[in-house]
Amino acid sequence: MQTLTVDLGDRSYPIFIGEQLLARPELFLPYLAGKQVCVVSNEAIAPLYLDTLRDTLRNTSFDSVILPDGEQYKTLEQLNKIFDGLLDRRHNRTTTLIALGGGVVGDMTGFAAACYQRGVAFIQVPTTLLSQVDSSVGGKTGVNHPLGKNMIGAFHQPRCVIADIDTLRTLPQREFSAGIAEIVKYGLICDREFYNWLSQQMSGLMARDTQLLSEAIYRSCANKARVVAADEREGGLRAILNLGHTFGHAIETAQGYGTWLHGEAVAVGMVMAADLSARLGWISAADVDGLRQLLLQAKLPVTAPGGMSVDQFLQLMAVDKKVLDGQLRLVLLRELGNAQVTSDFPLAELQACIIAAQ
Amino acid sequence: MQTLTVDLGDRSYPIFIGEQLLARPELFLPYLAGKQVCVVSNEAIAPLYLDTLRDTLRNTSFDSVILPDGEQYKTLEQLNKIFDGLLDRRHNRTTTLIALGGGVVGDMTGFAAACYQRGVAFIQVPTTLLSQVDSSVGGKTGVNHPLGKNMIGAFHQPRCVIADIDTLRTLPQREFSAGIAEIVKYGLICDREFYNWLSQQMSGLMARDTQLLSEAIYRSCANKARVVAADEREGGLRAILNLGHTFGHAIETAQGYGTWLHGEAVAVGMVMAADLSARLGWISAADVDGLRQLLLQAKLPVTAPGGMSVDQFLQLMAVDKKVLDGQLRLVLLRELGNAQVTSDFPLAELQACIIAAQ
Repeated sequence: MQTLTVDLGDRSYPIFIGEQLLARPELFLPYLAGKQVCVVSNEAIAPLYLDTLRDTLRNTSFDSVILPDGEQYKTLEQLNKIFDGLLDRRHNRTTTLIALGGGVVGDMTGFAAACYQRGVAFIQVPTTLLSQVDSSVGGKTGVNHPLGKNMIGAFHQPRCVIADIDTLRTLPQREFSAGIAEIVKYGLICDREFYNWLSQQMSGLMARDTQLLSEAIYRSCANKARVVAADEREGGLRAILNLGHTFGHAIETAQGYGTWLHGEAVAVGMVMAADLSARLGWISAADVDGLRQLLLQAKLPVTAPGGMSVDQFLQLMAVDKKVLDGQLRLVLLRELGNAQVTSDFPLAELQACIIAAQ
Repeated sequence: MQTLTVDLGDRSYPIFIGEQLLARPELFLPYLAGKQVCVVSNEAIAPLYLDTLRDTLRNTSFDSVILPDGEQYKTLEQLNKIFDGLLDRRHNRTTTLIALGGGVVGDMTGFAAACYQRGVAFIQVPTTLLSQVDSSVGGKTGVNHPLGKNMIGAFHQPRCVIADIDTLRTLPQREFSAGIAEIVKYGLICDREFYNWLSQQMSGLMARDTQLLSEAIYRSCANKARVVAADEREGGLRAILNLGHTFGHAIETAQGYGTWLHGEAVAVGMVMAADLSARLGWISAADVDGLRQLLLQAKLPVTAPGGMSVDQFLQLMAVDKKVLDGQLRLVLLRELGNAQVTSDFPLAELQACIIAAQ
């Protein structure tokens, strides 16, 4: 098992990465706020791991809330089902919520923990590659709104994150690939050496080699933890974590939540950000092509869905949270391994980039 | 105008108390995060003051969201209407929400500000006596759930509070009295001298004498600010602010939100807490009777609604947030002006107190 600490002062917490971690009570018990526990999971994941967790936590007052599976259920309405369960079974301020599932479950459980009785403890048990390297680190929680993704939420840090690699064995191929997209992102934005390592090891990663996966998850979390520790509430640096996300959110919103996986949309978004960076002369066309090849090797899409007009793209991007006082800001690549937030690009280049992406 | 500072480090903020404050842009403009403003109000208050505020803030990008009036609308569903309005009109992270109304509007607007894009700025403009002395100070925000009051929420401090006494002129008598209940509470829990002053000045206060009102609001806010500064997230001391509230919430829940005003339920709850304190030998029967007379002078109820059984009371109190690991904790009076949180009371005395209250 590898352990990593996210350094956030009195909100610091450990990330445990390894095999068979769900069966180890000593990873959970020190992080519970009291005797009560409520595991929040979904209909796909609960049948696989809920019994193991119930057994591991048999000395607690154990409850669970099971949500439907999918990004389209990441809503205020479903969030309220968590509150229903907690109140119905008299969970008090010293309860601990445990998110067992992917990013949707993690974001919703974290937000429920942030709001229930104005804030209770929670633990992340991410069971997808994407959530292990991304949404379980950093404290961003929330739900979607029909007019925008993650528009309603809170910053709320978990007590600990338990990333059990065994849970990735049952992960469908598309979701596995979506996780690889975010892993590639960490290399692109701040770790050139890691990006090169990924370019060499992609075939082994795609074969789900345990050692390679553990290393990729560790380095991804370490990179994210470093960025988050420097800028917990996204005042500046943290925004680089959104490489590809402004383009990606536009795709996800246009297609309807849940049609494209988040990581798939981010993969296309990263290609678009790289392409725009190349149009500005920051990186080379060969760099962009190398990224395309790497993502294709990871069975990820590299072109936007057909039928989205430039205007639709721009309009959906304008709702993005990165818009400050009407100015569209994007994360672009100064070089591979070095991202920068900027609003200094010609609209014509952005339009050309959108046209080229389809 | 009087000014008071709530001392919370980098979240400190001023409270302005006085006449004709809504017309003074210099009280608002320094506290806006950007150019966008969204005033949240309700159907009763907006027709009275929204135009004034629009004129005062004419140099901003001004929007408004109007909610229905009443505690029964303090729900996640209505909260979503605020998000609808903000997203529909493209409010970004630098927007500022302004709560124009009573406690319900303030709690919901504050919670919307806490969650919109994971946190934006907000300003409180309380227009009821209750909200001027209570809900606008301290950063507690939230909505109700069918199974419990204020169960979903966040701590989110306003940038400033603007308490314009002129808005109290149009306040219905019942709501004015409900505010007096919370003012009496501050005397009871931590300011014996203020309690004595209130006992002498109640007839002038009930006549809405401007000078007396200003003084009563200032001293109430100063007492609350002192308690909140010592314990922002309710780890200990802050709980004394809930004097009468556990009993009161039971009454409000049993009668259905909006039937009893919050301050009315708190008035009865304070009498019950005082009565239980007297049963424990902490204060005298004369003290309890003095409190009853003071509340009656303020046209407040001092007995619980008929038809509530002891069991119903106890069950509804058990859902209250003050219950830690199954132990019911109450705020009782060690003496007038000195409250204490305790779970050390015989159940029989509590039952007798509930029976006596009807």
